[in-house]
Amino acid sequence: MLTNISTKGRQLKMSFSLKKGFTFGGWLPHLFPNMENIYPPLDTTISHSDEYWLFRTFLESMKNASISNPNPSVGCLIVKNNNIISSGCTESWGNRHAERVAFQNISAEDLKNSSVYITLEPCTHQGRQPPCSELFKNKDIGKVVVGCIDPNPVVSNQGIQSLINLGIGQTNFFLSNEIKAWNYPFFIQQQKNKLFIALKWAQSLDGCLADDNDGWQWISGEQSRTYAHWLRQKYDAIMVGIGTVLNDFPSLDIRNLNHINQRNPLKMIYDPEGKIFSCNEEQQKKLLQKTLQKGSHKIFIVDKNIFEKFRNSKQISIWQKNLLENNEIEFINYQGENKLNTAEYIIECLNENNSKILNFLGRPLQSIMIEGGHRLLSSFIQENHFDIMHIFTAPFFLGGEKHKLFSKVKRSYQDYSIKEVKNETRYHIAAQALLGEDNLLEIIKK
Amino acid sequence: MLTNISTKGRQLKMSFSLKKGFTFGGWLPHLFPNMENIYPPLDTTISHSDEYWLFRTFLESMKNASISNPNPSVGCLIVKNNNIISSGCTESWGNRHAERVAFQNISAEDLKNSSVYITLEPCTHQGRQPPCSELFKNKDIGKVVVGCIDPNPVVSNQGIQSLINLGIGQTNFFLSNEIKAWNYPFFIQQQKNKLFIALKWAQSLDGCLADDNDGWQWISGEQSRTYAHWLRQKYDAIMVGIGTVLNDFPSLDIRNLNHINQRNPLKMIYDPEGKIFSCNEEQQKKLLQKTLQKGSHKIFIVDKNIFEKFRNSKQISIWQKNLLENNEIEFINYQGENKLNTAEYIIECLNENNSKILNFLGRPLQSIMIEGGHRLLSSFIQENHFDIMHIFTAPFFLGGEKHKLFSKVKRSYQDYSIKEVKNETRYHIAAQALLGEDNLLEIIKK
Repeated sequence: MLTNISTKGRQLKMSFSLKKGFTFGGWLPHLFPNMENIYPPLDTTISHSDEYWLFRTFLESMKNASISNPNPSVGCLIVKNNNIISSGCTESWGNRHAERVAFQNISAEDLKNSSVYITLEPCTHQGRQPPCSELFKNKDIGKVVVGCIDPNPVVSNQGIQSLINLGIGQTNFFLSNEIKAWNYPFFIQQQKNKLFIALKWAQSLDGCLADDNDGWQWISGEQSRTYAHWLRQKYDAIMVGIGTVLNDFPSLDIRNLNHINQRNPLKMIYDPEGKIFSCNEEQQKKLLQKTLQKGSHKIFIVDKNIFEKFRNSKQISIWQKNLLENNEIEFINYQGENKLNTAEYIIECLNENNSKILNFLGRPLQSIMIEGGHRLLSSFIQENHFDIMHIFTAPFFLGGEKHKLFSKVKRSYQDYSIKEVKNETRYHIAAQALLGEDNLLEIIKK
Repeated sequence: MLTNISTKGRQLKMSFSLKKGFTFGGWLPHLFPNMENIYPPLDTTISHSDEYWLFRTFLESMKNASISNPNPSVGCLIVKNNNIISSGCTESWGNRHAERVAFQNISAEDLKNSSVYITLEPCTHQGRQPPCSELFKNKDIGKVVVGCIDPNPVVSNQGIQSLINLGIGQTNFFLSNEIKAWNYPFFIQQQKNKLFIALKWAQSLDGCLADDNDGWQWISGEQSRTYAHWLRQKYDAIMVGIGTVLNDFPSLDIRNLNHINQRNPLKMIYDPEGKIFSCNEEQQKKLLQKTLQKGSHKIFIVDKNIFEKFRNSKQISIWQKNLLENNEIEFINYQGENKLNTAEYIIECLNENNSKILNFLGRPLQSIMIEGGHRLLSSFIQENHFDIMHIFTAPFFLGGEKHKLFSKVKRSYQDYSIKEVKNETRYHIAAQALLGEDNLLEIIKK
């Protein structure tokens, strides 16, 4: 039963492509059950291969999307005589991993000659939970099939090695890229030890993120918006600029989902000049109904000096006072003296204030999605501070000028020729899907 | 053997999507034999169904790409005992159709109980060739499977009906959208009685068609360029603006193809002000080596008055004289008095001069591909004079301003809100493919 595989020196490739139907949001037909033309990545009429069960295990891993953050959302299935006898998915931070959930209430007799499928190798270290690798000892399990190597250097290759040492470990990397994509914030955090930053926007074919009349309309269609809401649920926080807030008054919550965990992300608003304090009454009303609605946590990123000015102002209005005292709204800024660019400033703010954020979020901040407007997105692109871009393109033209990327920011790209830009910015389209009338591209760095 | 199908009232849907691996250029792995992850549209290990043979017939139909224009490029296979005993593809204009080619040198004994597969129903009328439907009479053929209905009203549904009347006709629309896409200029011409106009460009993620430094570099990668050359071969003519010519000196020929028919398209240059006549010596030299190279036909579209001025000028240079007398270069313009917009002007020019063009091309002009620059493309989009867009998007940003669509033309779109634009312009992404590092979208009208 011992599988002869080399577990040494396996590098996690940073550039990969996903099978049709998969995105960084998982297996698309899970979100869109009526999605046409998307078949499973294998012929499911050919019965019950390891690939088949790994695919089912992947679907299991999608159940606790976002609940498990900052842990990966792992799935585990126990299969006996071609039946699933138990299943599990990683619980919330500090609670049980997928294997431990699947093993609850399963007797030694049940496990005898069973096959266990796990999307990620079992942990081997004592963390907030005991090592999962211990679960497999002294059982009469037939085999354990692992779908992907863990990027955590404390675990990587050791989980699978411990199973091999027990004579029951196997690997099958049929869906390893897809598992990596599904847990991409976890993989990036493990490999780069940094906050995961996603950029998301919808644009017309000619690259407009909104029309020049500022009349608010969705650019992308219904399926795209559903997917975007799913991403909101998956990431820990979402951020928009105050310009977008005062133009659109977005709710920034999660709607239109069948699979809802009721886990709204933290709302973050980049408002360096504290424009929120000088809103007129009409704006205040809309804000309270939408973006600042009760029951959701909001973090404003402001400039230190401007914030102090507001706080110490003697002519403070009731609205300003309420904002400052509302215990669902937190104002944070960067205390350092360096002059920073926009994206850099935001990242330093988040790093400096992580205990406040932990308090609001209930767990460490692992991932954030920047949703607009075009100035904020352009800053993150130009400063190269991002890990993935989710770009929705709708099949029409707008012909405007005001809401294009790089249209109102320092144009550092203008110093480059195409050749230089191509060499400087090594991006890769890792996933693509047609969502309703729109095209989705998911682009990562090489 | 009579198949009970209704052939009445079958509308040719104008909005459709293609199976993975298919584009309007056909089956992609035909162009890129090493293309990974693209499997045939059916399981070819399950032996020899009608779908399997229709797929093989489709591949046969790709052999005479562009040679058959303005006829559709149809494929025909004759199969007996699971072997192909004969095959054919439509020959050049005025010559034999696919069925007639496949039937040559095939005996009555061979045909007995054979299965015939055709991508398009056989013609039933006397044209430049006798009706193909006659071929099937008084033979002992087992069945004839037709993959798509002909859009030509003289033929539509009658070819298949004649086969049904013989007791051997069947339809199988498994690949009918793909067959329609492969012969899209023919279908549009039949349905709308107009010149087929394709737009093609490559852009960065932020919608730049070139960098602002005008330093010439390819935006798209090698696979995209191969596909673009394949499209050049497939369409009858390609057109660029004189600005692009004098900036890039493109060869506008066909390169980088394995499947080359040595059928260069007609080169057309939109040069309303006759800039070609005032080139300096350096430009003249480059033009003669590249865009105006010997052996290829070139048509310049100029303004009538400006052209007359040049022709009658007494200080005509040798270069100008050579241009005017070069029998590979034709200057055409619109003789009418109406003031027309750019795209409209070009289309009227082509309609007015179709006998000159026929003379250059050797057959009627059915299709043209507009390749740039951004001004010319923007005109065709704004005036709504196009049938398909082939858009290549490379995964990087340029951040420029000068080479974006609509950046230097009358901004009629600015009068619309997004909602209006969405309703006015009903486009549909009919095909999508990842070509190397780039994303290809093929967009048609609904």
